[in-house]
Amino acid sequence: MLTQATTRPTGADPAAEYLGIRAQTEAFADRLSPEDQTVQSMPDVSPTKWHRGHTSWFFESFVLAPHLPGYKLVEPSYGYLFNSYYESVGDRLPRQQRGTVSRPGASEVGRYRRLVDEAMCKLLGAPIEDDVAGLVELGLHHEQQHQELMAMDIKHVLWSNPSFPAYREERPGPRPRDPQLRRSSSPEVRFEELPGGVVSIGHGDAGFAFDNERPRHDTLVQPFALASRPATCGDWLEFIADGGYRRPELWLSDGWAKVCGEGWESPLYWLDRTGERDFAIFTLHGLRDLDAAEPACHVSFYEADAFARWQGGRLPTEAEWESVASHQVPTGRPVLHPRPIGDSAPMFGDVWQWTLNSYGPYPGFRPAAGAVGEYNGKFMVGQYVLRGGSCVTPLGHVRPTYRNFFPPAARWPFTGVRVARDL
Amino acid sequence: MLTQATTRPTGADPAAEYLGIRAQTEAFADRLSPEDQTVQSMPDVSPTKWHRGHTSWFFESFVLAPHLPGYKLVEPSYGYLFNSYYESVGDRLPRQQRGTVSRPGASEVGRYRRLVDEAMCKLLGAPIEDDVAGLVELGLHHEQQHQELMAMDIKHVLWSNPSFPAYREERPGPRPRDPQLRRSSSPEVRFEELPGGVVSIGHGDAGFAFDNERPRHDTLVQPFALASRPATCGDWLEFIADGGYRRPELWLSDGWAKVCGEGWESPLYWLDRTGERDFAIFTLHGLRDLDAAEPACHVSFYEADAFARWQGGRLPTEAEWESVASHQVPTGRPVLHPRPIGDSAPMFGDVWQWTLNSYGPYPGFRPAAGAVGEYNGKFMVGQYVLRGGSCVTPLGHVRPTYRNFFPPAARWPFTGVRVARDL
Amino acid sequence: MLTQATTRPTGADPAAEYLGIRAQTEAFADRLSPEDQTVQSMPDVSPTKWHRGHTSWFFESFVLAPHLPGYKLVEPSYGYLFNSYYESVGDRLPRQQRGTVSRPGASEVGRYRRLVDEAMCKLLGAPIEDDVAGLVELGLHHEQQHQELMAMDIKHVLWSNPSFPAYREERPGPRPRDPQLRRSSSPEVRFEELPGGVVSIGHGDAGFAFDNERPRHDTLVQPFALASRPATCGDWLEFIADGGYRRPELWLSDGWAKVCGEGWESPLYWLDRTGERDFAIFTLHGLRDLDAAEPACHVSFYEADAFARWQGGRLPTEAEWESVASHQVPTGRPVLHPRPIGDSAPMFGDVWQWTLNSYGPYPGFRPAAGAVGEYNGKFMVGQYVLRGGSCVTPLGHVRPTYRNFFPPAARWPFTGVRVARDL
Amino acid sequence: MLTQATTRPTGADPAAEYLGIRAQTEAFADRLSPEDQTVQSMPDVSPTKWHRGHTSWFFESFVLAPHLPGYKLVEPSYGYLFNSYYESVGDRLPRQQRGTVSRPGASEVGRYRRLVDEAMCKLLGAPIEDDVAGLVELGLHHEQQHQELMAMDIKHVLWSNPSFPAYREERPGPRPRDPQLRRSSSPEVRFEELPGGVVSIGHGDAGFAFDNERPRHDTLVQPFALASRPATCGDWLEFIADGGYRRPELWLSDGWAKVCGEGWESPLYWLDRTGERDFAIFTLHGLRDLDAAEPACHVSFYEADAFARWQGGRLPTEAEWESVASHQVPTGRPVLHPRPIGDSAPMFGDVWQWTLNSYGPYPGFRPAAGAVGEYNGKFMVGQYVLRGGSCVTPLGHVRPTYRNFFPPAARWPFTGVRVARDL
Repeated sequence: MLTQATTRPTGADPAAEYLGIRAQTEAFADRLSPEDQTVQSMPDVSPTKWHRGHTSWFFESFVLAPHLPGYKLVEPSYGYLFNSYYESVGDRLPRQQRGTVSRPGASEVGRYRRLVDEAMCKLLGAPIEDDVAGLVELGLHHEQQHQELMAMDIKHVLWSNPSFPAYREERPGPRPRDPQLRRSSSPEVRFEELPGGVVSIGHGDAGFAFDNERPRHDTLVQPFALASRPATCGDWLEFIADGGYRRPELWLSDGWAKVCGEGWESPLYWLDRTGERDFAIFTLHGLRDLDAAEPACHVSFYEADAFARWQGGRLPTEAEWESVASHQVPTGRPVLHPRPIGDSAPMFGDVWQWTLNSYGPYPGFRPAAGAVGEYNGKFMVGQYVLRGGSCVTPLGHVRPTYRNFFPPAARWPFTGVRVARDL
Repeated sequence: MLTQATTRPTGADPAAEYLGIRAQTEAFADRLSPEDQTVQSMPDVSPTKWHRGHTSWFFESFVLAPHLPGYKLVEPSYGYLFNSYYESVGDRLPRQQRGTVSRPGASEVGRYRRLVDEAMCKLLGAPIEDDVAGLVELGLHHEQQHQELMAMDIKHVLWSNPSFPAYREERPGPRPRDPQLRRSSSPEVRFEELPGGVVSIGHGDAGFAFDNERPRHDTLVQPFALASRPATCGDWLEFIADGGYRRPELWLSDGWAKVCGEGWESPLYWLDRTGERDFAIFTLHGLRDLDAAEPACHVSFYEADAFARWQGGRLPTEAEWESVASHQVPTGRPVLHPRPIGDSAPMFGDVWQWTLNSYGPYPGFRPAAGAVGEYNGKFMVGQYVLRGGSCVTPLGHVRPTYRNFFPPAARWPFTGVRVARDL
Repeated sequence: MLTQATTRPTGADPAAEYLGIRAQTEAFADRLSPEDQTVQSMPDVSPTKWHRGHTSWFFESFVLAPHLPGYKLVEPSYGYLFNSYYESVGDRLPRQQRGTVSRPGASEVGRYRRLVDEAMCKLLGAPIEDDVAGLVELGLHHEQQHQELMAMDIKHVLWSNPSFPAYREERPGPRPRDPQLRRSSSPEVRFEELPGGVVSIGHGDAGFAFDNERPRHDTLVQPFALASRPATCGDWLEFIADGGYRRPELWLSDGWAKVCGEGWESPLYWLDRTGERDFAIFTLHGLRDLDAAEPACHVSFYEADAFARWQGGRLPTEAEWESVASHQVPTGRPVLHPRPIGDSAPMFGDVWQWTLNSYGPYPGFRPAAGAVGEYNGKFMVGQYVLRGGSCVTPLGHVRPTYRNFFPPAARWPFTGVRVARDL
Repeated sequence: MLTQATTRPTGADPAAEYLGIRAQTEAFADRLSPEDQTVQSMPDVSPTKWHRGHTSWFFESFVLAPHLPGYKLVEPSYGYLFNSYYESVGDRLPRQQRGTVSRPGASEVGRYRRLVDEAMCKLLGAPIEDDVAGLVELGLHHEQQHQELMAMDIKHVLWSNPSFPAYREERPGPRPRDPQLRRSSSPEVRFEELPGGVVSIGHGDAGFAFDNERPRHDTLVQPFALASRPATCGDWLEFIADGGYRRPELWLSDGWAKVCGEGWESPLYWLDRTGERDFAIFTLHGLRDLDAAEPACHVSFYEADAFARWQGGRLPTEAEWESVASHQVPTGRPVLHPRPIGDSAPMFGDVWQWTLNSYGPYPGFRPAAGAVGEYNGKFMVGQYVLRGGSCVTPLGHVRPTYRNFFPPAARWPFTGVRVARDL
């Protein structure tokens, strides 16, 4: 069981809660053609239909097969196809080959999902042990993580198409077209000073949390200041105009190697239409004019770090960030808001915020028992922690103790930066 | 005009001939799902829907746009997507990224094909200049080449799927299952002795030929002997059993590097089910028991060369091969015979036969004028010539002077070997 | 100035201290032929003559050129050759090409060193400003770092030679040959329990320290236990025998990918003579029988982490390690002890010990001003901290606050593991 | 025996002839430092001391060990180090690692050479069998091939040094500095028309030839014209000025990929000092002003082919070239003329001339028996034939039937182009 203190899903009807989350996955995928769902535009990306199959395989392998008497696998060969990285469960298709597999197709995957859902409803219709309940809960949080990954991944797939198609057309509305208007609306950033001291971070109570959020523990924080909002596209335009991508002294050595090697001149998905920094931004709504007030998004850890240095600051630590966010409740949003536009609690919901912390274990960390112990712990090297959720994080999925993580060069997640300063 | 002596298509009704060949493409693709048509399983492979779009773009770019007054491109962005390698026509999607483009989808490509066909019928319904007729004829031969490529490519796509799906299920029939029977039916190979001398090769008369088949010219051939049939799977089993893939003295140096680097132990698509050379062969019908009498297929130039050396022979030259085949008429077969099983003229139709010749220009070679001059000439380095057609070469497409070519490591074409000997 | 509190070198005679350290570099190189000094056996390795030139360039660029009036560069083109990574100083030879440069040869580099030394003695013979004194001190610590790198690098160069030559022959002595004797002498490991609490780490006083050791600051440590000695080769044999390199559940995911991709089956420089774990170890003395009591060396962070997990522990944090070591004075050894054999303080001197900490800035970290600010800060991503020094760390170079760092896959440094446990 | 008709070396004193050729190798190497002799600047290049060792290993392995009774290998481990590519002789150091081996050093290799030479003199002092004499003769021609390779390779090594050192300083002499003078002296190219017909090519008589030059045979040549001299640097400047490196229609497809991928804008070793085509050329004498009358050198097959097409011609075939050259005797030059400047017979001696022919077997080709059968035959794929020798081909080594070969992208040999035309 992954959570150290288990609870049954809070809904009165576990099957209904299960089906509700599962349906959000399908609702997202329904807007995509079979071809869209098949493409893997780079090794980090997985095809939509793979996400749909993998999340079902998760329930099948970890819940149904061991805990529903008489259950038969829908199709034994799916284990090879849909296992992501669980060494203890057996061999699997190499990740970078997920886009070479045309069958099962999108509709066959839909059938797989329905059969798994039927069996899960049967299982959830009767009383179950706490540990099984814990696995179901884990599976639903896992499904939500893949809902975000589906959004990230299909955005890259569509971006790889020379015609830049939209995932979903934007509803027409009163959007100001005057560039002056567009670029003037972001509030001035303030730096709030905080005293530091011994703070408790990590998940300590009975609700659900991933194993990597535990145990709750004390840590010592020096006095610091934290920006009142994430950096905006307007801020980033200034960074670019000031030579941000041309000055090695702002960058970590590995980051500068990426700038030079990959030709980075702006965040991912920015398109310089004229070569004179007249940027459009590619979103799930397709190409849009850059909005200076919008949080800057799709920046790597390296870029976040360089930007913070350029501003005379640095990235916040996990403990700093959590000590500020811990009293907020992320209000969240529906499965998908196609671009970052704040309507959540101040620390949450627009862009994942890079921290200074390499992803590692908390003092006293213990991975979950069993195969699901591979969920988090084995990735605790070479990645950096992000906090706060993004516009494509499902409603209810994020919390103040939540630790997301990606390699420092990753740019396809919805990642931004909130600057901190020493006092 | 690509052909040096042009003729109108021989059919009484050019539009009907055009539509007939175009329909064969669609008939082949109709058995494939949108997902199947989207995948690129390795850089050499193109997605089915790309082939369908590219062949249409060929007519649109080289026939309709310049020669049908008032014609408007169906979708200007298709030029970037569907140009294969014509530098003079503009930029294009890098080849290895064809599998990252989900849109246009398979049905949108179908619509593109129909609109091109409508315009082509309009053009073909009126008298046309000889040079335009030559381009149409070239476009149809080009379409047929891509019909074969579609078969080669989808075979690799399906092979990349761990469940080895069939392109088309085999019709049940009286297939002997007794291994003794299966492996005893191929006729003994004979070596026919031929006198050599000055022979004329290449295309000289008025019918269609690619520019690389011209001009017809004399060349001097030494006396030689040629095998009466291509090597069979049974022959290849002997080669393997005699250490064929473990003895460097049989191999060209570059070939031996491939054997070691890629772990070659048999032709492509052979599957050793037990590790004891109990081979199944993957075909467009799915996995089948190896048939010892079937021509060995999907061998590289390197393997063909090593096999011939093992047999005490060598590969034939183009001139040797053509001097024997020149009096035969390939009877051909429908668009697709899913595996090599001879029913054509002796030198034709089962497997492409590697020759000793590097692909280069004939004496006096002149590429076709205009953009289609990039069709053949610019590939005349680093590849080897194959002759004779294969079971997936469309009916009527091959002829004695036809020069196919692939790099020496290529194994996904339907390639085999007919051994020659010095006298 | 890199140090926040500067002091003049402590010796009464700065020039003598300077020359003493510089002479150790040349004494090490004197045993090597010009050919030995030229080879770069992998991209991480630099040729010996490059180290000798680079450390001289450091003094020339950062001390002589700006601070010795009238100084002329020995050879302006050396800037391009011998700049390691200082972006602010100009272009430089790509690192992986250092082994392609034959000239200047080893003796010309010796002349360069002598000319730099003469000028340095002139500068040091007169009173100098504190900031210049700080740069000289930095240059000498930098020289010592390269003395260790020279030892690491030439070990890899000689290992790359199929005849496994020794850097220096071992003096004959009474070395027990009986395998039982050899493998029985290491003391049983004990785990000392420590209470944790708020501890101060980092360099706070006036002596020399690199910028990355500052500022001294408080941090909170949980109760923990620490092994009384580093893991030995005998321990590692048990790890191997228990399937250590074959059990993915022991490994971080990136580490397991290395095990599989690189075929790791033991630490670097272990040679399995019979395929049955009859190991020899390659040392600067050449190949020797494995000594079970010797500290295990040349393991990556991944291997250290997996070994600790196998033992039921984990790597120590920097703060844990430093809180234990802070009261010890490393006694050190001459420039080179060719293999790890403990004769220093308990926490020091045999093998660098991997910690759990990704290399990052301390709270309040400020890089040194000027070009030497590139010395440490820009590498604070993607690497892990090591503590304690090794048998090839020069005498007097290491201290309790010293932070060494390497990427997690690095194995050619003299790296080992001391296991910690949660309490 | 490699030669089909063997003769003893023609000299009255075989040992003296042997020692004379061996001494030329050492004379060339004597100008190089141990460091120069150690570097491998790219995978195609071998270190000088490797060439010196390998050529000695050749005599040791193929002559002394099998044919001198009681001979003991100087050092058995040299077999691994100095075997180039003979599979039948055993394992060997991977080619690209030759530059990672510092020992044996240059002087130890000298000792190896002397010991081999002593044994060879013992063997040559007594009557020997014809087949042994054939192997000695082969070994001497092999030694001469490596003399040329040493020149090619060290040129690349020195070029890789940012200070562009000379192999040997040029003797001062009356070299005109006026650019007008320098660029006006090459004779106008003429195209001599030749009737073609049946011609005999290949080596047929009793003298030495490599197996790949045999058997002599008839072939049919169409009427053609051949340029009276190779293309000059002045010609190449015109090619560049006319967009030669920017016009894809001039290039083979693989060649154009190299132009774009490698950024080719001129032959190798041309250095554009101002960015405005003010070229210096790197030679074994160091950097020199471009001499327009000098043959263009260090061009790939791709560049040669594009240049010929730009001139309205094509590369000559082997048969065409040999039919013109067959009546000339190359007068040759000492071991090394550091840059191409014609003083030989018209078809010989300045630059190797690319032909249109892929390197393959002549009709009836039989590789030599035994291990030396790997000398030529196994490379007969993917390379192109060059004819005529170059300024660094040793005196007496080349002949009209000589077939040199390199891959089409190779630029570091002394390669140029003589244009042919169809009539």
